[in-house]
Amino acid sequence: MDPSAETLTFPPEHALQLEPHLPPIQPTTTASHGSPPATHRPFVTLTFAISLDSSLALAPGVRTVLSGAESKAMTHYLRSRHAAICVGVGTAVADDPGLNCRLSSPPSQPAHHPRPIVIDPRCRWDFTAEAKVLQLARAGRGLAPFVVTAAREPPEERVRLLEGCGGKFIYVAAEPDAADGAGGARLRWADVLAAVKCEGLDSIMIEGGGHVINSLLAAPDNELVDSVIVTIAPTWLGQGGVVVSPPRTTAADGKPTAPLRLTNVSWHPLGEDVVMCGKISR
Amino acid sequence: MDPSAETLTFPPEHALQLEPHLPPIQPTTTASHGSPPATHRPFVTLTFAISLDSSLALAPGVRTVLSGAESKAMTHYLRSRHAAICVGVGTAVADDPGLNCRLSSPPSQPAHHPRPIVIDPRCRWDFTAEAKVLQLARAGRGLAPFVVTAAREPPEERVRLLEGCGGKFIYVAAEPDAADGAGGARLRWADVLAAVKCEGLDSIMIEGGGHVINSLLAAPDNELVDSVIVTIAPTWLGQGGVVVSPPRTTAADGKPTAPLRLTNVSWHPLGEDVVMCGKISR
Ligand SMILES: NC(=O)c1ccc[n+]([C@@H]2O[C@H](COP(=O)([O-])OP(=O)(O)OC[C@H]3O[C@@H](n4cnc5c(N)ncnc54)[C@H](OP(=O)(O)O)[C@@H]3O)[C@@H](O)[C@H]2O)c1
Ligand SMILES: NC(=O)c1ccc[n+]([C@@H]2O[C@H](COP(=O)([O-])OP(=O)(O)OC[C@H]3O[C@@H](n4cnc5c(N)ncnc54)[C@H](OP(=O)(O)O)[C@@H]3O)[C@@H](O)[C@H]2O)c1
Repeated sequence: MDPSAETLTFPPEHALQLEPHLPPIQPTTTASHGSPPATHRPFVTLTFAISLDSSLALAPGVRTVLSGAESKAMTHYLRSRHAAICVGVGTAVADDPGLNCRLSSPPSQPAHHPRPIVIDPRCRWDFTAEAKVLQLARAGRGLAPFVVTAAREPPEERVRLLEGCGGKFIYVAAEPDAADGAGGARLRWADVLAAVKCEGLDSIMIEGGGHVINSLLAAPDNELVDSVIVTIAPTWLGQGGVVVSPPRTTAADGKPTAPLRLTNVSWHPLGEDVVMCGKISR
Repeated sequence: MDPSAETLTFPPEHALQLEPHLPPIQPTTTASHGSPPATHRPFVTLTFAISLDSSLALAPGVRTVLSGAESKAMTHYLRSRHAAICVGVGTAVADDPGLNCRLSSPPSQPAHHPRPIVIDPRCRWDFTAEAKVLQLARAGRGLAPFVVTAAREPPEERVRLLEGCGGKFIYVAAEPDAADGAGGARLRWADVLAAVKCEGLDSIMIEGGGHVINSLLAAPDNELVDSVIVTIAPTWLGQGGVVVSPPRTTAADGKPTAPLRLTNVSWHPLGEDVVMCGKISR
């Protein structure tokens, strides 16, 4: 079976446990009563699945089944609860991801699909009409991506492809990346998130890959993260995987220190996996 | 307060959850009825505490508080349930560990201390009478270590120190370590465990450090492991720590594969940490 055609179910009692870690449910009326104060960025959930040795994948581009059916359903529940879903260009290129919501829903209440956001400063993602996310958008089973880029003039053909199904490129000014001799352009996460908010998207789940997650776990950008939801699978992927581990920090005396700790932590066993929810401790 | 003087408590309801993952409780009578079949090695529990990015410590020798009070008490409960406790020489040198059991116990039923086993093929552990484990042994608050070595004639002074408080060196023949240009000697884990069993020790928990754990997670030695108990703390230690991650394995077509997966997995939230119990899947 085509995996993008399957539908998943996530039991309401599990959903209830996640609720304190999710963005507020959007009011369906226009009443501002009880809604959260407007900010210049969306609610940000950092969420991913790792092995016991903190790998997202065996290697970039190697499809790696990590989490079980229950955690997969949870990921799709999270997708139903966020306005947008974000990955880096590395993931877009390596995985050709669908980025839609495959949770089963009654015909009276069609599935909410999150808006895919791909961070691609240099237009490395050379997609065609066959990219899975575009196919799903054309079939009405997902939304077309917004590609955040530092390129002032993205390739015309791709502009046309995106706009043909409701997507687009979004320009964000880059800061020069001192660490990159190859002329790479770093986008400030605060700028990216402000651009997302400008599109009327009030919440975003950031799923990967390794570079994206490690940069958001590092100071000062980890201040932008509201919630962290990590699935851990009881497997080791071994040395050489795509590892989640933020850069090392050091104290004034030069000794290494732990870059960050979570608070308000809860652990939820789910099938053979565990799901950890928490907030970054400030 | 001297941390080696504190006593810890571990609630019986938590102990009950661990029971399926522990060695059988030794019969106090000599009745063989119901006791497990005799084997040439002890029951082996691999147990350690890691960060979300799979580090045991910030760096070798840097004291790293990872797990909370509840998981620490669990570790000491495990010590009360194993005949021996094992660490590599790297840990002995870096941490000067106590390796005793500090679980509070009624005066009528004195604490069971595990026998410390230190794997030190080349006698690198240059201990004195002040080593914490020797101090505790002399004070009757722990047992003196058995040091497993490939050296035929360990330093006389150290032999005297160990034997003075009930410890000793145990000789195990080494196999030459092809990967080590510095004349290192690798001990076969099967030989080490057979030597432990010869001492009448029927169960052993292996606590660390990184080299020891990674070698026991790798094939073929992971066949010697009966139970895996890992505590995960909701913190990231950052790149450059002492990482648990077994060597990568590859399939016949050269593609990377996951070196190992656990089965019979259960997850037990404990304070802010989670404790995972499982068996290595064969
Ligand atoms: N297990 C999971 O939950 C999960 C989820 C998602 C992905 N994955 C895996 O992760 C792997 C891909 O990870 P990856 O680290 O290679 O790629 P990635 O994080 O998806 O993308 C990294 C790239 O995105 C761009 N980028 C990200 N943040 C940026 C910023 N602030 N400013 C400018 N550019 C930025 C950069 O592009 P440039 O290089 O062009 O500058 C960077 O090289 C794949 O194997 C995928 O399967 C796993
Ligand atoms: N968080 C936790 O639960 C936990 C528990 C324990 C330790 N730790 C941490 O782990 C760190 C130490 O780890 P480490 O990797 O440096 O040292 P280690 O694993 O304790 O000791 C490694 C050394 O032991 C000897 N060895 C181990 N297996 C052997 C074998 N099969 N044959 C021959 N020799 C063997 C070798 O000695 P030679 O080099 O002399 O050949 C090897 O270099 C410390 O920072 C400590 O705090 C953390």
